[in-house]
Amino acid sequence: MELLKERIRKDGIIKPGNVLKVDNFLNHQMDIQLFNEIGKEFKRRFADVKVDRILTIEASGIGIAAVVAQYFDCPVVFAKKSQSINLDGTMLSTQIESFTHKRTYEVIVASRFIKPGENILVIDDFMANGCAALGLVQLIHDAHANVVGIGIVIEKGFQQGGAKLREQGLRVESLAIVDAMDADAQTITFREDS
Amino acid sequence: MELLKERIRKDGIIKPGNVLKVDNFLNHQMDIQLFNEIGKEFKRRFADVKVDRILTIEASGIGIAAVVAQYFDCPVVFAKKSQSINLDGTMLSTQIESFTHKRTYEVIVASRFIKPGENILVIDDFMANGCAALGLVQLIHDAHANVVGIGIVIEKGFQQGGAKLREQGLRVESLAIVDAMDADAQTITFREDS
Repeated sequence: MELLKERIRKDGIIKPGNVLKVDNFLNHQMDIQLFNEIGKEFKRRFADVKVDRILTIEASGIGIAAVVAQYFDCPVVFAKKSQSINLDGTMLSTQIESFTHKRTYEVIVASRFIKPGENILVIDDFMANGCAALGLVQLIHDAHANVVGIGIVIEKGFQQGGAKLREQGLRVESLAIVDAMDADAQTITFREDS
Repeated sequence: MELLKERIRKDGIIKPGNVLKVDNFLNHQMDIQLFNEIGKEFKRRFADVKVDRILTIEASGIGIAAVVAQYFDCPVVFAKKSQSINLDGTMLSTQIESFTHKRTYEVIVASRFIKPGENILVIDDFMANGCAALGLVQLIHDAHANVVGIGIVIEKGFQQGGAKLREQGLRVESLAIVDAMDADAQTITFREDS
């Protein structure tokens, strides 16, 4: 998605340790016009798929998923990172290791929001080692529902997440795949769209 | 907002301790069509106000704010609940006490996303004791920006948040104000729209 790549080139900041900061439009401040373009592009790529619900994970996936859902005309469910007193009933849960925060946390989804046989589209802002996406896929499988696709805004193609998911036969659509970054030169190499 | 009150009556579950669960459409599963109606209603109520940015707080404010922002044609910034390695630069921060989780946490916003003199609209899903909204107002004041309004989807009118904010001269628009709830009878009393 050229518009997205241009925006990453313009506003992304590369930090040592392969960190790509895009907090001025994606995951702290959110450019909602861009999110609408992202929604149209995911709909174009998943046009052949029936989607009953979109599943994402708090916090930075939520805004993207909410805007994207308008193009699929379906509700969004977001996995929560901690137990709340307002959650009860049967829960699906899994452990996710965070690349950003260097720790493992539990995420939960009320099982009544992912029903057996439903078609679920996973949406998230970033994929690096794929732990968040793999965790959400695990929740969907535990619910006996179908993963019809995984839509990622920015994939770090030099980490293993995309390969792991695609090896499982999962359909992954990443709108920008970063193959290399250079923090000194502030240059970024994107994979060509296939 | 009648549509919202009807939905709360239909799908809200009242739990002992004055807990109102609306996780099937507002803060776990999100009904994006309803969020669009909420966005139209906030725009109607704040039609006279110039809004440069919307400020909300993770996690459950994000989806609502993202959809609402489409009606104000502005970006959204969400306050984060924990320090991340991907955040740096100057930060605004404040302490917020959580009614739901019975604890105090720090929230932060990169100061470059709230500029002096800007008009900021606060959007959140719930207000009870008002601590989250008061914390966001504090951040905006610390940034020397203007709080043009506070838009809340559900206000618990029997708690003190709304009164505290209105006493400060802040303009609060709550789309549904709950004046009383009965967990045994599962009945809910809404304040009349003014």
